[in-house]
Amino acid sequence: MIINYPNGKKYIQSQSTNPSPEEKIKKQKNTAYSNRGMTLEEDLNETNSYYLDRKIAVIHKKPTPVQIVNVDYPRRSAAVIKEAYFKQASTTDYNGVYKGMYIDFEAKETKFSTSFPLKNFHEHQIVHMKAVLDQNGICFVILRFSTEEEVYLLEASHLLSFWERMINGGRKSITKEEITEFGYRIPLGLHPRIDYIKVIDYLYKLS
Amino acid sequence: MIINYPNGKKYIQSQSTNPSPEEKIKKQKNTAYSNRGMTLEEDLNETNSYYLDRKIAVIHKKPTPVQIVNVDYPRRSAAVIKEAYFKQASTTDYNGVYKGMYIDFEAKETKFSTSFPLKNFHEHQIVHMKAVLDQNGICFVILRFSTEEEVYLLEASHLLSFWERMINGGRKSITKEEITEFGYRIPLGLHPRIDYIKVIDYLYKLS
Repeated sequence: MIINYPNGKKYIQSQSTNPSPEEKIKKQKNTAYSNRGMTLEEDLNETNSYYLDRKIAVIHKKPTPVQIVNVDYPRRSAAVIKEAYFKQASTTDYNGVYKGMYIDFEAKETKFSTSFPLKNFHEHQIVHMKAVLDQNGICFVILRFSTEEEVYLLEASHLLSFWERMINGGRKSITKEEITEFGYRIPLGLHPRIDYIKVIDYLYKLS
Repeated sequence: MIINYPNGKKYIQSQSTNPSPEEKIKKQKNTAYSNRGMTLEEDLNETNSYYLDRKIAVIHKKPTPVQIVNVDYPRRSAAVIKEAYFKQASTTDYNGVYKGMYIDFEAKETKFSTSFPLKNFHEHQIVHMKAVLDQNGICFVILRFSTEEEVYLLEASHLLSFWERMINGGRKSITKEEITEFGYRIPLGLHPRIDYIKVIDYLYKLS
């Protein structure tokens, strides 16, 4: 069943099979409960594993970049990194392939309820997103309002406009209204938890 | 000028502008010299930077995966990782986007001259390559014979066949003859050093 949002956008249903009304209530309760304490990263890792296992898409989180300074090589056991520092990533955190297309995104969460601060993104990530769009890659951000447990997909082209507005002296955040207007809310599920590929299918007419 | 190899495959010329014969000799000398001591990873990083700067492609090496065990947060200075271990990568090292298409590869070198040992690859990398091919991504390996300074691009589909042969009790390496037959030699340049995108253009009729 397709339900249209008041703004005319299609409601994107979760990938799981249709539950009965009773199951639905139970599921929603479970979801709310099960997500408590789950980070956005954990939810996305679970989602990407789901996609990988079912051959839906191959998308991975990149390892945290670390500058290794000192490594100890004890005899007969694994090398131990004794001194290292966190490096700033030069790209977004997630990328991979879906139906031949390059997928690239960053995921961030905020405790604010009315806006999403742009300081969650770094200049070089913005530069990377522009480069990906120039190569016709599919690029977006997944934004989570952690208090409300609401998750949105916002295409990088929109994020770049809001970034530009900030650079030109405008507000340093995206309002919640702007996110609901330009982004797509992703209903939370149990398995997968954040079915963002559904939005990609809808945006790129893939299914 | 296009020169065909004896096996009918097109010779893929380096991306740089055509040098005069004198320049060519000088350049070849420089190339041989400049590559001495350069690792395959350094050559590919330079190549990827070249592609990125010229908006040809957006391809990055993934950070080395590290399992962080203990982090010290000194006051007023950067966090120091005090204990960490190298983790085995679950994917290949390089990926990105070229003209909307997903590009994925692993790069390995050997000191052998007559064959390339398959133990350079891990089971989970092979699994990853299969998954990428299933999603219609472009997947390959870049193989370097370091003694001869020869670099080849071999499509993942061929690597998977050689891997399969090994699993079925066959030889544990790919012979040099097989690599020259099924792979594409990448002429070494100064800038970019390993112009692998030229081979992709040729294979996928992109230019």
